[in-house]
Amino acid sequence: MTLNTLSAPSNLLDAMNYSLQAGGKRIRPLLLFATLSAFNKNPKLGLPVATAIEMIHTYSLIHDDLPSMDNDDLRRGKPTNHKVYGEALAILAGDALLTYSFQLLAELNDSAITDMIKLKLIQQLAIAAGPEGMVGGQVADMEGENKSLTIHELEYIHERKTGKLLEYSIIAGALLSEATEEQLKILREFSRHLGLAFQIRDDILDIEGTVEEIGKPVGSDITNRKSTYPSVLTLDGAKEKLNYHITRGKELLHEANIQHNYLEQICDLIALRNN
Amino acid sequence: MTLNTLSAPSNLLDAMNYSLQAGGKRIRPLLLFATLSAFNKNPKLGLPVATAIEMIHTYSLIHDDLPSMDNDDLRRGKPTNHKVYGEALAILAGDALLTYSFQLLAELNDSAITDMIKLKLIQQLAIAAGPEGMVGGQVADMEGENKSLTIHELEYIHERKTGKLLEYSIIAGALLSEATEEQLKILREFSRHLGLAFQIRDDILDIEGTVEEIGKPVGSDITNRKSTYPSVLTLDGAKEKLNYHITRGKELLHEANIQHNYLEQICDLIALRNN
Repeated sequence: MTLNTLSAPSNLLDAMNYSLQAGGKRIRPLLLFATLSAFNKNPKLGLPVATAIEMIHTYSLIHDDLPSMDNDDLRRGKPTNHKVYGEALAILAGDALLTYSFQLLAELNDSAITDMIKLKLIQQLAIAAGPEGMVGGQVADMEGENKSLTIHELEYIHERKTGKLLEYSIIAGALLSEATEEQLKILREFSRHLGLAFQIRDDILDIEGTVEEIGKPVGSDITNRKSTYPSVLTLDGAKEKLNYHITRGKELLHEANIQHNYLEQICDLIALRNN
Repeated sequence: MTLNTLSAPSNLLDAMNYSLQAGGKRIRPLLLFATLSAFNKNPKLGLPVATAIEMIHTYSLIHDDLPSMDNDDLRRGKPTNHKVYGEALAILAGDALLTYSFQLLAELNDSAITDMIKLKLIQQLAIAAGPEGMVGGQVADMEGENKSLTIHELEYIHERKTGKLLEYSIIAGALLSEATEEQLKILREFSRHLGLAFQIRDDILDIEGTVEEIGKPVGSDITNRKSTYPSVLTLDGAKEKLNYHITRGKELLHEANIQHNYLEQICDLIALRNN
């Protein structure tokens, strides 16, 4: 991480670092590295892109936690950014992380990565994170609060709010590996199943997890009257759907003509995780 | 503007459009087009970049106006974004505009623009808008509230908060025109003088303007106990400094070996503007 070399007000850098270093599963970098491995590439090739993705993910958490949004005081067991630095600085730290992530991609300095691939990485990240992706998903999520959503509406939200950036982590790895169009298509479909599985597991953990495991109050979805997979499909129905997406995802991996073992292990990790 | 073709929640697009279409001086696109003209290029070449710049500028205004920041109810004589759409959607509309601006640059589709130039345009925009640029300037501005700043501190703030994006508008035009390193250097120096002149005029207008002209309450800097050029240098001192930066800027234009007349006219526009 190169943040400390930036010439910027120190409290801005502190606020950016606070949330970047707050831990988390780092599932997105893991997906990127596993995808590079699947193409027999050195995972190191993806390090700056993985950093950019974590910055985007971190910015989205900081903004989502704000009082005018989810109004969360705790994130991963620690006070949220605005609780420590105040609302204004939290908003600006998010803005700075978002902006800097694009700088990192534009400055990719590796002879193995062509300018065309760099531009594609930037374009796809903007699509994944922007109005058609993550931000659009967050807006749809807010609109769905206190409403009974259909399974279709629930999927619309999650495919954008969390799915698009998970998908990007895999697609970025494939772009860096110069995957074929056919492989990209299969991996996008795989990512969709993986992303939905990830969210379903999240919803199940909100019921079955412990506060120590998930780092936030258990049952907050019910308290906040949020539509979830268990609330729409029942808990058993949600588990069945989780199983379906994992199974279908693995099938797709076997069709992509890649070294699929790491990505397959991540499927199991996501299906069984406790945090 | 292609926003309406985006597949995103309609209220998000509405909130983005509301502020984008709210008018304003469009000084940044004007600078970009004038720079292209200075290199005998067709201003049309800069249209997508100009749109991206206005999106960044608009996002920064939406976030700056938020209750936790400047808490402004009016912008250009109209209710601010969060007054119309609520705080959460205002934050997200800003995030979406910021993200989408990078997508526009990555998707530049003009055979006259090489991939290397596109990457340079993206990198320079991220630097201008991010923690070392505009966002850093906004943080420094917040920290300087209710303090008596030195002229040096005031310049630090304004060179970042408004200066860097004005500079980018000119540098983007020069990059699109394949300017020499020497020309880029002179134009950066020119931009610095122009940006400071712009801010000094802003501060003077806050004292001498009318509410109709500037679209916000007159004297708000004094009410908010903000350090300004007139408060640090006296009103006459500020006018003298404005004059110095305009004169020095014009001198630099004459050294750059370009068709300088449009850029020179913009200097006068900035020095004399009433809004």
